[in-house]
Amino acid sequence: MTSLTLVIGNKNYSSWSMRPWLVLRQADIDFKEVRIPLYWPESAAQLTAWSPSGKVPALHDGEIKVWDSLAICEYLAERFPEKQLWPADATARAVARSISAEMHAGFAALREHLSMNVRARYPGAGRTAESLADIARIVTIWTDCRARFGAGGDFLFGRFGIADAMYAPVVLRFRTYGVELAGAARAYADAVLALPAVQEWVADAVAETERIERFERDASL
Amino acid sequence: MTSLTLVIGNKNYSSWSMRPWLVLRQADIDFKEVRIPLYWPESAAQLTAWSPSGKVPALHDGEIKVWDSLAICEYLAERFPEKQLWPADATARAVARSISAEMHAGFAALREHLSMNVRARYPGAGRTAESLADIARIVTIWTDCRARFGAGGDFLFGRFGIADAMYAPVVLRFRTYGVELAGAARAYADAVLALPAVQEWVADAVAETERIERFERDASL
Repeated sequence: MTSLTLVIGNKNYSSWSMRPWLVLRQADIDFKEVRIPLYWPESAAQLTAWSPSGKVPALHDGEIKVWDSLAICEYLAERFPEKQLWPADATARAVARSISAEMHAGFAALREHLSMNVRARYPGAGRTAESLADIARIVTIWTDCRARFGAGGDFLFGRFGIADAMYAPVVLRFRTYGVELAGAARAYADAVLALPAVQEWVADAVAETERIERFERDASL
Repeated sequence: MTSLTLVIGNKNYSSWSMRPWLVLRQADIDFKEVRIPLYWPESAAQLTAWSPSGKVPALHDGEIKVWDSLAICEYLAERFPEKQLWPADATARAVARSISAEMHAGFAALREHLSMNVRARYPGAGRTAESLADIARIVTIWTDCRARFGAGGDFLFGRFGIADAMYAPVVLRFRTYGVELAGAARAYADAVLALPAVQEWVADAVAETERIERFERDASL
């Protein structure tokens, strides 16, 4: 029986939840999932019961509680060294941590204007000068990492790892908002979409029935 | 001769720069400092030359480049294990990473309404419902960590480490905006202010001559 419980929000909307979930599932680490639908009358009480910050995701490992997506990923990398969740090479690992942290604290325009909504399709929506700059920066990151470190696999550092999990919700946003990709960036996005764990997350998201109005938009916009 | 170069912005304004700088200085790790004044006509070209993301802070360690405050801290923790930049105990380390990541990606209202300005004094300014909630959450974090893990020193986990560096700019913001503290939170803030490395940073900030208007406000507000 596993000691790990991951607390997440709606799979359709919660990009932060998706990241450690993907790391666990893709690394074949057994865990129990607790899903708390967000922006519901009962949400706050449930969140506070599970997470010291009142936010998802949170991980319970026996008595240990870890919260925040990136802290959970670092915790898992330490707890399961045999899974090599960060690249083994020091230079690659430094870059993997840098782009993961850049995603963790940055890309405010992308978050605001292209918020995650897995099942929706809003092609062309959400473009502002700032969100276009965010998209361009992401394409640069993906292309550079694939060129420098991608040998030996389809992912940013070859095999799938934490850095890919940090960018996987972006791949889904690009699909929702119809962001056109070419070359190495497109091949990378396709590889992420083809992952069994991503397909499972998407299927679960589509099957959810909650609708959070603040993350929906008129499809004609 | 050190192989480490830390690239930072203005010491008066750049809270992100302060974090890894403090970790290095307080741990007595030798490094070269490159300061790039921000929001200047020459800033963008200099930032791009040093940092792949075009942002500070960035760390060069020989050929290795790491950017983003938290990625740099994780890099340093790995590079200098003898400095124990994270707590040695697994539970304490999980919490230290959680609160560091929470600061890294959160507290948007605090950042917006109580932006760092080391030498300014705006007592009472910047209070909104959201920034007050951020302040309350920070007081809870400090108080809980001191009670659970603080034995053996004056800092969140006893001895000074990365988690303290992540919250040190908040201590300076609380001073600038006159946020009143009591009990354990106040004692903790005083311990941070008394650190030689913090005093050095503050002295350097006060000596800077650049003024960035977007981070200044009418003192009468």
